[in-house]
Amino acid sequence: MQGEDRSENLELGYDVPATIGMDESDIVTPCLVLDLDALERNIRKMGDWARAQGMRHRVHGKMHKSVDIALLQQRLGGACGVCCQKVSEAEAFVRGGITDVMITNQVRHPVMIDRLARLPKLGARALVCVDDLDNVAELSKAAQSNGTEIEALVEIDCGANRCGVTETADAVAIARAIDAAPGLKFAGIQAYQGAMQHLRSYAERKAKADVAIAQVKTLVAALDTEGLACDIIGGGGTGSYPFEGASGIYKEVQCGSYAFMDADYGRVLDENGERIDAGAWENAFFLLTRVMSHVKRGRAIVDAGLKVQSVDSGLPVVFGRTDVEYVQCTDEHGVVTDPESALQINDTLRLVPGHCDPTCNLHDWYVGLRNGKVETLWPVNARGKSY
Amino acid sequence: MQGEDRSENLELGYDVPATIGMDESDIVTPCLVLDLDALERNIRKMGDWARAQGMRHRVHGKMHKSVDIALLQQRLGGACGVCCQKVSEAEAFVRGGITDVMITNQVRHPVMIDRLARLPKLGARALVCVDDLDNVAELSKAAQSNGTEIEALVEIDCGANRCGVTETADAVAIARAIDAAPGLKFAGIQAYQGAMQHLRSYAERKAKADVAIAQVKTLVAALDTEGLACDIIGGGGTGSYPFEGASGIYKEVQCGSYAFMDADYGRVLDENGERIDAGAWENAFFLLTRVMSHVKRGRAIVDAGLKVQSVDSGLPVVFGRTDVEYVQCTDEHGVVTDPESALQINDTLRLVPGHCDPTCNLHDWYVGLRNGKVETLWPVNARGKSY
Repeated sequence: MQGEDRSENLELGYDVPATIGMDESDIVTPCLVLDLDALERNIRKMGDWARAQGMRHRVHGKMHKSVDIALLQQRLGGACGVCCQKVSEAEAFVRGGITDVMITNQVRHPVMIDRLARLPKLGARALVCVDDLDNVAELSKAAQSNGTEIEALVEIDCGANRCGVTETADAVAIARAIDAAPGLKFAGIQAYQGAMQHLRSYAERKAKADVAIAQVKTLVAALDTEGLACDIIGGGGTGSYPFEGASGIYKEVQCGSYAFMDADYGRVLDENGERIDAGAWENAFFLLTRVMSHVKRGRAIVDAGLKVQSVDSGLPVVFGRTDVEYVQCTDEHGVVTDPESALQINDTLRLVPGHCDPTCNLHDWYVGLRNGKVETLWPVNARGKSY
Repeated sequence: MQGEDRSENLELGYDVPATIGMDESDIVTPCLVLDLDALERNIRKMGDWARAQGMRHRVHGKMHKSVDIALLQQRLGGACGVCCQKVSEAEAFVRGGITDVMITNQVRHPVMIDRLARLPKLGARALVCVDDLDNVAELSKAAQSNGTEIEALVEIDCGANRCGVTETADAVAIARAIDAAPGLKFAGIQAYQGAMQHLRSYAERKAKADVAIAQVKTLVAALDTEGLACDIIGGGGTGSYPFEGASGIYKEVQCGSYAFMDADYGRVLDENGERIDAGAWENAFFLLTRVMSHVKRGRAIVDAGLKVQSVDSGLPVVFGRTDVEYVQCTDEHGVVTDPESALQINDTLRLVPGHCDPTCNLHDWYVGLRNGKVETLWPVNARGKSY
């Protein structure tokens, strides 16, 4: 870009990193970009899989936090709705037109319980998970005072050792309490094993999933004897959905990362020992960065550091290049080794972030690309919605 | 909080986590909170130090990204202005009334160079760092086309091995080019050693600082022979400011984290072997979190995970308590060991995040507390301003 006068066609508004029709190389960086063709293929592929299994796919909106992408997942991928982790996220999706939103988490603050109970007034279901009897009473009270209905699922801990009850008897007791509580409707079981999704080995993941599936089957049988039917039996992520799909007991999977892929999920292996970003799912999501300083031979400094990506799951990988490597991340800078001096100031690189969810949460915009040109700008509607 | 009906006095707007006058325990979590008394003491203390040294203190606004806190640092701490890393951050500070803003970084994208050149039209200085001769020409052109002046400093690499030139001759050549370029004014030297700030040992930090100081002295002498005077000779952070202060050559320090403190900086030791969060600087900055699930004995689940804090520098520390420990961080949850079963649902904990800068960048609000009550809500104005 050096030496050319592109200032006229780069005249941007102050709040967006790109304009429609712009070349990828002109986008203001650092910035999240999406390969729209790859995104659409991923979405269609998961939709086809779910349809073939006779499963619903409730896409995990907490991954991308975008109304536009959730609507695309409903339209192209047949998604039945969205799940997310917080009431404030759910509000963002509901305001954007998603009417079937499930909070796959507990809600305990009185203000947020009240906001949850108001979601039906916006035309949406209010679906939430419960792992404690006191919470049943709290939710019931809020639903009654708002004149609405909250659909509650019992959450079981099937191996992640976080939220959720472990004993079948405790789960049944909560389900019965939900069923009996005014303003509440018993909706089913949430059984997501979050701690196994990123295990590299297919066999290890399958072993963990088998434990969860057995636990769910036991609980469903116990609920049956109580006359409690489950509309939703949900769980499953990008690292486990084939297992829940084949279980014969789960009714919904809740995959998120499949649509974007990231560097850490990419290293997960399928049943043939193939990386899932080489076979099943394409990289559709990138952090576009630019060389901003290159004083030292072999060492380029790029403009993407900790402020624009989460490195909890490792450093980003430079997409499509083997000659350069992102080796260090500080607050505002990345260090890219460039042994062949291939990089010049303002050259752009597509980084595949280590972990997509918390990286998306740092940005206000997705820039959608097709054939090297900007086709769309989508806001990250639920960014920062942490309540 | 359980069992009480606080819904009336907890009626909040949809976009803020607290209301003025609220008790700390009622704040919607997860949420950043500030101990205003501690913050003000930190700010005054650094201001007193700089005044005693005869140094200017240009506070690093990229840490907190808040106009309100920057103005407080000017008012209570005598700060001469702000530094930050990006043009879009600078715009946020300038719009908020800070008129002396320096970008301690290179700006290379043509759009952002143009936006830099427009800062004087908003009533502010446009101060930026340069480490490449081509950039001098780019800046000069933008200043001329906007009819403004850009003040440019030469950035030297004094040990961090990121941006900046290492050779005195190269630095002098850039300074001369700036001095000769229409629309530009030579402003001095940026010499920040970012890689040593968090070294635990005082002696190790001093050794690194001594190298930087010697480098700066050599460069200043070389510039003197060219007749190039430095208005600003800047650098120094929370881990090094005593060294730059005693150097006799630096004119400005650029501390950021001292005002908030975080868990990682807190472990840095002073010349007496004392942690700097025990002696020099108080913890004024916390991530307030709440117990949201507590099904398992000894293991509480709190609502602060990766989406609301950066763990690049380690897990957060629970403030003021030795009976509980934050031991695991996933996207939306934290695991807190609670061997004495001291924690109940909706109990709040103050976490000291591992690293303040990228944690601030995840939030929209600071909630300011005094005597346990909410006194103020400050927006994180420059959050997400990564261009």
